[in-house]
Amino acid sequence: MDILAELNGNIATIGYGLATLGPGIGLGILIGKALEGMARQPEVANTLRTNMFIGVAFVEVLALLGLIAGFLFI
Amino acid sequence: MDILAELNGNIATIGYGLATLGPGIGLGILIGKALEGMARQPEVANTLRTNMFIGVAFVEVLALLGLIAGFLFI
Amino acid sequence: MDILAELNGNIATIGYGLATLGPGIGLGILIGKALEGMARQPEVANTLRTNMFIGVAFVEVLALLGLIAGFLFI
Amino acid sequence: MDILAELNGNIATIGYGLATLGPGIGLGILIGKALEGMARQPEVANTLRTNMFIGVAFVEVLALLGLIAGFLFI
Amino acid sequence: MDILAELNGNIATIGYGLATLGPGIGLGILIGKALEGMARQPEVANTLRTNMFIGVAFVEVLALLGLIAGFLFI
Repeated sequence: MDILAELNGNIATIGYGLATLGPGIGLGILIGKALEGMARQPEVANTLRTNMFIGVAFVEVLALLGLIAGFLFI
Repeated sequence: MDILAELNGNIATIGYGLATLGPGIGLGILIGKALEGMARQPEVANTLRTNMFIGVAFVEVLALLGLIAGFLFI
Repeated sequence: MDILAELNGNIATIGYGLATLGPGIGLGILIGKALEGMARQPEVANTLRTNMFIGVAFVEVLALLGLIAGFLFI
Repeated sequence: MDILAELNGNIATIGYGLATLGPGIGLGILIGKALEGMARQPEVANTLRTNMFIGVAFVEVLALLGLIAGFLFI
Repeated sequence: MDILAELNGNIATIGYGLATLGPGIGLGILIGKALEGMARQPEVANTLRTNMFIGVAFVEVLALLGLIAGFLFI
């Protein structure tokens, strides 16, 4: 009886996990600074929110592409 | 009888573990900055909380997709 | 009898260990900022504590899902 | 008799080791901020200590669950 | 007789090594902040030292459990 290892699963899940590491920390810093700016100058809150969304889109797409990468590389 | 290693389990658990790493630190920074802003300007606490929830949603979804990734990639 | 490695265990334990890494640091930053705010403005301590609990819930759930992930992916 | 590697042990020990990494750093930041607040405003030291214990409980439990995870996943 | 790798030892040592990583950094931040506070307000040094010991106990126990984990999981 040969038992090598009963591990199973697809390493695409590890790939996605690593892909969220940077964007997760980055989004936290980005949105945190936006909130800090809103607290100091409440009158520019709308401008900050609009620009925050543009920044969030750039960072978020990196993490979501990590999920698509699992389907691209079979 | 050859025993190479008696490890078992699914590596999707490691994938999810990695997927919480970045969002976990990021959410801490994000909510921490929101709390800092509320302490300084208590009069804008409601605006900060609303924007904090928008930011939390963007970051939280990255970690929860890590759990879904385990079901997507079998 | 060939024994290559006598390792045993389930890698779900490593998965949970990784899942506490980010939330552990994140909760530290989050609660640390809340305590900093309470020390500066003791009069808003109640507002800060309420918002701190909301933030803690968002981060804590990521780590606890790491334990549940071990049961989901067998 | 071929011996390739004489490693032995249970990887739950590695899992617990990883589970202390985040909470260890997080608790350091959390309690450090509480001590910083006590040094600045000694008159709110009691409020800070009470809230510090609440925060410590949330973070400490994540690390201790890492020990329990070794018994849950065999 | 083919010997490919002559590694031996128990991976519980690696587990303990990882278990000291987080608490090691965390204790450094914690005690560092306590010393910073003592330098600024020498009149509250006793209160800070007492609270520092409480905090150190919470973090130190995480690392010491890493040594016990090696005996628990065989």
